[in-house]
Amino acid sequence: MKNIALGQHHLAEFYGCCVDSINNKEFVRNAMVEAATLAKATIVTDVFHEFNPHGISGVVVIAESHFAVHSWPEHPCVSVDLFTCSDRMEPQLAIDYLAKIFKARDVSVQKVDRGQVSVPRVPTGVVL
Amino acid sequence: MKNIALGQHHLAEFYGCCVDSINNKEFVRNAMVEAATLAKATIVTDVFHEFNPHGISGVVVIAESHFAVHSWPEHPCVSVDLFTCSDRMEPQLAIDYLAKIFKARDVSVQKVDRGQVSVPRVPTGVVL
Repeated sequence: MKNIALGQHHLAEFYGCCVDSINNKEFVRNAMVEAATLAKATIVTDVFHEFNPHGISGVVVIAESHFAVHSWPEHPCVSVDLFTCSDRMEPQLAIDYLAKIFKARDVSVQKVDRGQVSVPRVPTGVVL
Repeated sequence: MKNIALGQHHLAEFYGCCVDSINNKEFVRNAMVEAATLAKATIVTDVFHEFNPHGISGVVVIAESHFAVHSWPEHPCVSVDLFTCSDRMEPQLAIDYLAKIFKARDVSVQKVDRGQVSVPRVPTGVVL
């Protein structure tokens, strides 16, 4: 048996962002959809919500899991979750793009393995 | 100045779950909505998706951020994210409920501070 992670989860924080951009629902939605596309995600649907008096929350559901965003224009900070279940994806491209589009001064990223399970080893030379 | 976290993020894994339950979109949706209610969240909207040949992904957008779920019936494992921005919420009640309803044999939870910013200290005795 060997241990694998079913998902990779990048938890990214963007600090010192452009206040007007991260308080604009359509701007944040377009940024997240473009980030998902750049990361090679297959978009299933999305839902975004604007809070009163400020802040945007939203999720892009992708075939490979989900991207989520929360903005706090009053600080001005954005938290983004990139949860992926495919080795073919490139979440770093999404992070680089979001840092640029939000005009972030600082970016912090943690990577967490999700769903750690044991699966049988395939003997060398065996083609399934 | 003092440092605060704008959000608390619980990353929970449920292992050894009931396969039929975690592969049923309505079951998983109802479980997540009930978990959000128990945790004292204000539900804004939700979106759930059933994958072919198996697996459910879904998100409950709440006024306090989001709850997300991904199930892998083939393992059988469920990953749940509880992202909250309110001290009044009780995410542990949601975790306990989901462990029970999914019939999980093991549960693993990590807690991560999100959006760590500096804010002014309020002098003792000052009422805002």
